[in-house]
Amino acid sequence: MNALEQAPFAKFLGIKLISVTPDRIEAELSVREEFKNRGGMMHGGAVMAYADSLGGTAAHANLRPGQRTATIESKTNFFASIPIGDVARAECVPLHRGRSTIVVQTRITRNDGKLAAIVTQTQIVMEPAGA
Amino acid sequence: MNALEQAPFAKFLGIKLISVTPDRIEAELSVREEFKNRGGMMHGGAVMAYADSLGGTAAHANLRPGQRTATIESKTNFFASIPIGDVARAECVPLHRGRSTIVVQTRITRNDGKLAAIVTQTQIVMEPAGA
Amino acid sequence: MNALEQAPFAKFLGIKLISVTPDRIEAELSVREEFKNRGGMMHGGAVMAYADSLGGTAAHANLRPGQRTATIESKTNFFASIPIGDVARAECVPLHRGRSTIVVQTRITRNDGKLAAIVTQTQIVMEPAGA
Amino acid sequence: MNALEQAPFAKFLGIKLISVTPDRIEAELSVREEFKNRGGMMHGGAVMAYADSLGGTAAHANLRPGQRTATIESKTNFFASIPIGDVARAECVPLHRGRSTIVVQTRITRNDGKLAAIVTQTQIVMEPAGA
Repeated sequence: MNALEQAPFAKFLGIKLISVTPDRIEAELSVREEFKNRGGMMHGGAVMAYADSLGGTAAHANLRPGQRTATIESKTNFFASIPIGDVARAECVPLHRGRSTIVVQTRITRNDGKLAAIVTQTQIVMEPAGA
Repeated sequence: MNALEQAPFAKFLGIKLISVTPDRIEAELSVREEFKNRGGMMHGGAVMAYADSLGGTAAHANLRPGQRTATIESKTNFFASIPIGDVARAECVPLHRGRSTIVVQTRITRNDGKLAAIVTQTQIVMEPAGA
Repeated sequence: MNALEQAPFAKFLGIKLISVTPDRIEAELSVREEFKNRGGMMHGGAVMAYADSLGGTAAHANLRPGQRTATIESKTNFFASIPIGDVARAECVPLHRGRSTIVVQTRITRNDGKLAAIVTQTQIVMEPAGA
Repeated sequence: MNALEQAPFAKFLGIKLISVTPDRIEAELSVREEFKNRGGMMHGGAVMAYADSLGGTAAHANLRPGQRTATIESKTNFFASIPIGDVARAECVPLHRGRSTIVVQTRITRNDGKLAAIVTQTQIVMEPAGA
């Protein structure tokens, strides 16, 4: 599966990849009724799921052939709520590309440009068996 | 909306609340095909969405009338992958119940009992207008 | 105590503030023998202590008269070790300045310019009694 | 350097190890004047430095010969302030001991038993060269 090919969960959420390079991923997500939290806004869990999907894509875009990656930890700060019906834009960049870990950061903004959340994640890089 | 009433996003994921008290929330989630990541296991984003939903429920169960709550930050450590078809069990307990914040921790385990993830979140408590 | 006045712990570490504005704090720290970890490099605990001190200063620089602040959570990602004898440079900027929380991010770099750590913290803002 | 041998930074802080086993580290720290923050309590940076020192010790106690470890990320939640003159007690346990990472959690309590902070950290395990 290459970086552009999306996992079933990314399709379930409805993430649209706008551009994918090793240095930067951009995406859009239409904030549907199903994403509603108790307060009537986009659920924080949906925000994290969106970011995690892009973080995996970004890590994937930085792997060498045969390597695999898994998220080992993820930290989110929430700044503003995203209304239902909005388009949540995301940009994900690597902060660090090491031999054994890749650290990526995703900024999610509302359609009005306001920063909604920042998600920072560590992905561990696993070598192919026998490497 | 009371603590037992689930948000649309919790229904979208299919979370089943088993028990809800201010001291402890228990839930189950059937890990469906839609939750699949690139590696064929439950997506980390789905794991975090599941935990965040319970964290919100736990915070809600500790509010006084009129108060509202919002997640301001969330930290996840991932330990083991959850296979598709599994039942992911979750238990969420408050670590701290302060005047202005509630900190909750959710442990997610696979059906075989192996710890899959721990999610720790800070919820801010907002007083009713005019309080 | 104003933002420029340093706490005893900041003096204990030997932090030198280079510039303090509400939008940006800059500082330097000489990495002394006492900061050594088991591997002979600057201890991660010293890196976090350094960043936390600046985070508090940055939050303080954004308070209104009478308000106080406390760190409620802090997340660090470590990227590179800092050698003893080095000068660790730090830059701290607010990511979010809300009514009830301030979120700050500190980047710590080695003298050779390599990024050593990023520390993101949430500070809660407490109003003066009777406000 | 074995697990019981403390790094210079741990001595600088004055950490007293009470017991060290692979399953649990216990320690005490006298909260000195030098640890004071702007509010006159123990600085959050000192709390994190204390915990990080124990986290490293705990990881170390779980290594096989020749392996080394480094903290790659650390997350702290603060719940209560620790007064100067207090004895801060810490207990550190591994949450996960994997092939490539060890995740440890440290609880810091005041002398009156109140929980002051929880610190969760990921340590990466590095094999000896040529392994």
